[in-house]
Amino acid sequence: MAVKVVARERLQSGKKDAALEIFREMVELTRKEKGCIAYSLHESAEDPDVIAMIEAWESQEALKAHLESEHFKRLIPQVGALVAEPSRIEVFKELF
Amino acid sequence: MAVKVVARERLQSGKKDAALEIFREMVELTRKEKGCIAYSLHESAEDPDVIAMIEAWESQEALKAHLESEHFKRLIPQVGALVAEPSRIEVFKELF
Repeated sequence: MAVKVVARERLQSGKKDAALEIFREMVELTRKEKGCIAYSLHESAEDPDVIAMIEAWESQEALKAHLESEHFKRLIPQVGALVAEPSRIEVFKELF
Repeated sequence: MAVKVVARERLQSGKKDAALEIFREMVELTRKEKGCIAYSLHESAEDPDVIAMIEAWESQEALKAHLESEHFKRLIPQVGALVAEPSRIEVFKELF
């Protein structure tokens, strides 16, 4: 069964366009990775400055390789400079 | 673009089997609903008593109809009796 990740960030006010530009590159490069089933960016229905990447990976190993990828290590710190509070990242195993 | 829901619950200790039985029926009935793209149950990689339904709907209207369905109104209160803390339900709009 798939490994899912929900990675939620609250952006600093006025930083959304800059964050989306970084995330567009992340999405484009990550979807090409081995074992990536889904990788999409979302905004909260309640607060457009809250965004969430919802991810599905074929295995824990595929997720681990993603976290070690060049684009992850290069782009995620750029997003980190735009957030208003610490990211909330949760990893889930699909049951059924 | 899809509407996503991440609904997270921390179960009371020892109640997981009972909760999974209820969620199996929820999953079976919900996947038959109009506008349901995905509806899967997960457990946290860090704590198996933390579970999360990750959902994808074609529209806000499809999600609204789900929340008004017979099985939602009948089964979710049964899950509510097994949780250790209030549910955390977040609704997201897919951007890209």
